[in-house]
Amino acid sequence: MKERVLTGDRITGKLHLGHYVGSLKNRVELQQRYESFIMLADVQALTTHFDQPQLIKDNLRKVALDYLAVGIDPDQSTLFVQSMIPEIAELTVYFSMFVTVNSLRHNPTIKTEAKERGYKEMYYGFLGYPVSQSADIAFCKATLIPVGEDQIPHIEQTRKIVRRFNDLYAPVLVEPRALVGERLEGLDGNSKMSKSMGNAIYLDSSPGEVEEKIKKAKTDPSRIHKHDPGHPDICPIYGYHCAFRPESKQDIYEQCSRGRIGCADCKKLATGAMNELLEPIRERRRQYEGQPKRIDELLVSGTDKARAIAKETMLEVREAMSIRYFD
Amino acid sequence: MKERVLTGDRITGKLHLGHYVGSLKNRVELQQRYESFIMLADVQALTTHFDQPQLIKDNLRKVALDYLAVGIDPDQSTLFVQSMIPEIAELTVYFSMFVTVNSLRHNPTIKTEAKERGYKEMYYGFLGYPVSQSADIAFCKATLIPVGEDQIPHIEQTRKIVRRFNDLYAPVLVEPRALVGERLEGLDGNSKMSKSMGNAIYLDSSPGEVEEKIKKAKTDPSRIHKHDPGHPDICPIYGYHCAFRPESKQDIYEQCSRGRIGCADCKKLATGAMNELLEPIRERRRQYEGQPKRIDELLVSGTDKARAIAKETMLEVREAMSIRYFD
Repeated sequence: MKERVLTGDRITGKLHLGHYVGSLKNRVELQQRYESFIMLADVQALTTHFDQPQLIKDNLRKVALDYLAVGIDPDQSTLFVQSMIPEIAELTVYFSMFVTVNSLRHNPTIKTEAKERGYKEMYYGFLGYPVSQSADIAFCKATLIPVGEDQIPHIEQTRKIVRRFNDLYAPVLVEPRALVGERLEGLDGNSKMSKSMGNAIYLDSSPGEVEEKIKKAKTDPSRIHKHDPGHPDICPIYGYHCAFRPESKQDIYEQCSRGRIGCADCKKLATGAMNELLEPIRERRRQYEGQPKRIDELLVSGTDKARAIAKETMLEVREAMSIRYFD
Repeated sequence: MKERVLTGDRITGKLHLGHYVGSLKNRVELQQRYESFIMLADVQALTTHFDQPQLIKDNLRKVALDYLAVGIDPDQSTLFVQSMIPEIAELTVYFSMFVTVNSLRHNPTIKTEAKERGYKEMYYGFLGYPVSQSADIAFCKATLIPVGEDQIPHIEQTRKIVRRFNDLYAPVLVEPRALVGERLEGLDGNSKMSKSMGNAIYLDSSPGEVEEKIKKAKTDPSRIHKHDPGHPDICPIYGYHCAFRPESKQDIYEQCSRGRIGCADCKKLATGAMNELLEPIRERRRQYEGQPKRIDELLVSGTDKARAIAKETMLEVREAMSIRYFD
């Protein structure tokens, strides 16, 4: 039996190259060797967007299209919708019984939010994000989770919760491990590429859009003239060379450091590599875009498959917890 | 269409006279006029007893028997098992998105627990008790909730959560109101009758057990001799007269205050009234005790009925929240 991989994305917006480098690329590579599940996390999206349910709904099919466009093969990977697996909510409630508030406060995502809003003004569901994420992973007994490095503490918390469950009741759940993807710098050079920072190149960008965005991207600010020596380590464009034309990264590093290539030329090379990566993604997007019904069918049948697994797991969970009362 | 009543009990132990006076009596009286639902709250029991699932399981049928014994008529009232309505967990998760941690910290039950353990050591599920209780009530659109006075803040919180949901999405849920029962003092005269305080008379007590417990019950400590004037207001036995022989409470109050009745005689009268109340309860218990299969059938069919309502409500909830994606 193949090992099971699970990942997913909060469907608060379409996906970008940061997602690709951090996780999507790994998912595509893994899907042949593993039984692969990809969750469209609409419930997790509600933790921050509960007052914008229409936005979540609008993004469901956009994100599904992104997945198919990057090469997620629906014959190999199962796409499913989180809210349509109510067993995840059940498991979240059961996990929440034995997870202390304190252990949640140690989670870096929660800490960051607490700095901005304070703990008291935090929403209860947001505070419990690590609990529900554990349920997302545990329900299908996934063992391998392709995530960005910021998600490592979440996987660690999932491992703890699973161990605690197994100790308390019976060893029916499985501890997952993280497969950590690479980090991609945003166009502003200040932070990871992300939708909320407005520094992202989306997977549905046209060649011209990529070119425009890269042209405006920050580079080493101390480099004024073409022949000034550059500092590739602090330049997001160098990060794009590493990610998208790794074979030439050593060469670019030296040329930049020695002032032998100007930023404009360096950006052109990066743009070219990005557009080369995106071209087959655009092509697959065009194919699927014409088949909205097929996407819906894939989501429905994928969700059915995931739900069957969820029901099985919950039978075991209930048996372990002695909450099966009638035959 | 009849208005709907919902109540329930955490099935951490069998029920006692405090439950009877506080809520069961009202439930029996209401069941003819209202559509009546009674929940065996096994999931709520886990908030404090997650490490004793067998205890919860053992209490399921005991509490069901208590209900039937006090006169809950299965033809009029629907008994159901909380964990078998997974829609409650779903609704809990949705509610948790827009309830702040702060509003939970204002809840008196949470405050009391926080004093003992601190907020940080509190379990996440326990902190969310008011959220899940709101889901318990909202899923079946109950309008009237017979509760003890300590539960009033919970009902108030449910009203707030329901209003917030209806404002955010669409007016599909219903604000409940509390029907507050009387408080019964425990045998120690120090606190409300409760299992955890060890000061309770259980509904399954034999006449001799009631007699023994009342004999040992605290009375006015300043009353040393039979003819000393007593202080009925601080005596739990006077509370039992009020609850179980209200027609004579004025008389007992005067006799005690004037030193005209001794504690032993006063206790005998209270014991007599309690046993008179308990006698038909014992009789019904004997009938049902011989029919464990019938009790199981009642729980299964009641749960089916409650679940059908839960499914209907969740369709409306999902529609309101725009989380219905496929036809």
